[in-house]
Amino acid sequence: MKPIRVGLLGIGTVGAGTFNVLKRNQEEIRRRAGRGIEIVMVADLDTARATELTGGQCEVVNDANLVVDNPDIDIVVELIGGYGIAKTLVLKAIANGKHVVTANKALLALHGTEIFRAAQEKGVMVAFEAAVAGGIPIIKALREGLSANRIEWVAGIINGTTNFILSEMRDQGLDFDTVLKEAQRLGYAEADPTFDIEGVDAAHKATLMSAIAFGIPVQFDRAHVEGITKLSATDIRYAEQLGYRIKLLGIARRTAAGIELRVHPTLIPARRLIANVEGAMNAVLVQGDAVGATLYYGKGAGAEPTASAVIADLVDITRLATADPEHRVPHLAFQPDAMSDIPVLPMSEVTTSYYLRVCVADQLGVLADITRVLADATISIDAMLQKEPDEGKDHTDIILLTHQTQEKNVDAAIARIEALPTVQGKVTRIRLEQLA
Amino acid sequence: MKPIRVGLLGIGTVGAGTFNVLKRNQEEIRRRAGRGIEIVMVADLDTARATELTGGQCEVVNDANLVVDNPDIDIVVELIGGYGIAKTLVLKAIANGKHVVTANKALLALHGTEIFRAAQEKGVMVAFEAAVAGGIPIIKALREGLSANRIEWVAGIINGTTNFILSEMRDQGLDFDTVLKEAQRLGYAEADPTFDIEGVDAAHKATLMSAIAFGIPVQFDRAHVEGITKLSATDIRYAEQLGYRIKLLGIARRTAAGIELRVHPTLIPARRLIANVEGAMNAVLVQGDAVGATLYYGKGAGAEPTASAVIADLVDITRLATADPEHRVPHLAFQPDAMSDIPVLPMSEVTTSYYLRVCVADQLGVLADITRVLADATISIDAMLQKEPDEGKDHTDIILLTHQTQEKNVDAAIARIEALPTVQGKVTRIRLEQLA
Repeated sequence: MKPIRVGLLGIGTVGAGTFNVLKRNQEEIRRRAGRGIEIVMVADLDTARATELTGGQCEVVNDANLVVDNPDIDIVVELIGGYGIAKTLVLKAIANGKHVVTANKALLALHGTEIFRAAQEKGVMVAFEAAVAGGIPIIKALREGLSANRIEWVAGIINGTTNFILSEMRDQGLDFDTVLKEAQRLGYAEADPTFDIEGVDAAHKATLMSAIAFGIPVQFDRAHVEGITKLSATDIRYAEQLGYRIKLLGIARRTAAGIELRVHPTLIPARRLIANVEGAMNAVLVQGDAVGATLYYGKGAGAEPTASAVIADLVDITRLATADPEHRVPHLAFQPDAMSDIPVLPMSEVTTSYYLRVCVADQLGVLADITRVLADATISIDAMLQKEPDEGKDHTDIILLTHQTQEKNVDAAIARIEALPTVQGKVTRIRLEQLA
Repeated sequence: MKPIRVGLLGIGTVGAGTFNVLKRNQEEIRRRAGRGIEIVMVADLDTARATELTGGQCEVVNDANLVVDNPDIDIVVELIGGYGIAKTLVLKAIANGKHVVTANKALLALHGTEIFRAAQEKGVMVAFEAAVAGGIPIIKALREGLSANRIEWVAGIINGTTNFILSEMRDQGLDFDTVLKEAQRLGYAEADPTFDIEGVDAAHKATLMSAIAFGIPVQFDRAHVEGITKLSATDIRYAEQLGYRIKLLGIARRTAAGIELRVHPTLIPARRLIANVEGAMNAVLVQGDAVGATLYYGKGAGAEPTASAVIADLVDITRLATADPEHRVPHLAFQPDAMSDIPVLPMSEVTTSYYLRVCVADQLGVLADITRVLADATISIDAMLQKEPDEGKDHTDIILLTHQTQEKNVDAAIARIEALPTVQGKVTRIRLEQLA
């Protein structure tokens, strides 16, 4: 049988990785897929670099439309990124009857509904294992491996840049700004790191996982997105003293009232396996009703780890291309006519636990005032840490860990605590998950 | 479309779990699979219990042949276990054109070649996610999720009973026999625990993983199988002092000379994530050339975790049943006409590192004698621990960690060390893997 012909849109880091791995392992991949998989055409604005990278082994063009419109191409791999031209090209490829593989989490988190519907109508597949957690086959695990389960929640360290920064802040006791500069110097953070450090990238990925886990449409606009820029070394240290690590988690949880979809710094018990995922590594913890907790760990970015996911999708499409379109693996795990309309909850309706740090005057009755406010808001306290004031200072920190409560209760309690005359400045609030 | 009809052979723990999960999550599973999946017939010798468990919702028979020969059954789930009647029934089901799902690692590790060949000829699928690591979708990850990779090695904690025992031995400082009794009392170990504690169960699973990882036939008879019965609390404690944990690992590694396939207690660095997998949990670490290291963690046994894997296979078969048989996912990840004949190496040819404990007389020159023997055998030493003799004793322990070397070199060196006049008794040898 003749090889599956692949056209590549964009040959940057991941594109070059895909080309190289596919070439290096072509024999092993053919033995698995039952057919060769060949990149026969590459579109990139920098045609000279593309020609050099591909060693003249495939056609190089500077107009991506030539790939998308080429009747000899079976699968288009989109590695351009962003929502602009990438969206146009993906939709055109689908309209032309081509299967699509993409690593573009932003595109799918925002425009997935339109793209998957178009693919469904055309009877082609859109695969995106590389869009979440790089080389870790977490999309496949959620979509296929755990298909027996009612998935209860997914919680992941799904952004390597922020995990690297948090690991360094903890190890070295340094502040965010200092570590960010170091991460940029080492190549772990981009020149413009906004999407990573503000949690947007993690929220794109959490959005995709929420859709696959619960059979809901992608709804990035409903996600709560909070990054790590305001996190201080002080809170990381206090968390340690209380037996917790702070990680940026992407969380999707099913509750009776609706779906929680949120990205924020989170205290997790230091003894959990996922709390010990350090540096730029990724890990996703999934709770299913039958299987219990399962964890998936590996490299979440980089040329070859991401290429590993892109190529796995190519092999899957090669295998499934001959199946009845009605019975292929659905794009979002659930059949398009069987999606749920359970709503994504606003953050005020989310239920979780909290770490609260309150800076207070060192005087009698302060703690009583604060605990009274919490009790009035029906928030119960799980643990407390009160520091002696530093030499010569007249204020100190009180740290409280709460039991589970609704976010709106905590919002209200924080407003009342901040209004107390003995409390200085803002209350620091970090969410806490037991993940058990 | 009418539901896929499933016949269940054996409704013990896992069978009941499968029945219950499939019923509880039937709506969610149908939304994923695009078709209902229904157990319509159950065969079990205890028909009264089977009828009770299934609540009269499906036909119960005491002769498994009635299921296997029933033309209305699409998929047979074999949960009888063992190599006897289970083998006959699986082959008969295949001959009758039925797809098969099985959790029977022993059957496949020993008779997989015959069974997969029969399935291939008949154009049916044999799926066995439940045979390795319970609910963790490790078969799917190796077979599909990592299909871009040249897999270099797989190392797994794939037997929950032994991991529970080792965790308890370390935590409580207790001996093997004491903890085994406790494990039996708690239901973590069977009344006859031989297959678990002697490493046979782990070797069945490692054999299956080696086939899928490297595209070789299942060759259980070539596996090196060593359990944990001879492990002492002393060695677990010394290992801790040196920064290592002892785990029973199933290892499959590709080398230029051949495949290493081995199960044995193994020292691994305590800081590795997999070293912190405690109790009855399972975890598998996979090293691929593109993706690097990925880890898969979860419950390796139990009614519902195993049912999770059985049902995922049912969903997969439902999806793939309409695909061209030549392009379905191959049973062992590689197309049957593209298997490798790279040999499984004898243990003497395996390359690894070693922990050696030597009981010596407390006198001058002993260490020099031992290190001389190792140097002569070209074995270099990575770390050493020499204990003071206990009060009133004239002998003590020397612990040596070696760098990588071939097993036959260590065999020879141990024989020479044991012959030294200052050495008492046998040298304790435990293999060591850095897993990096």
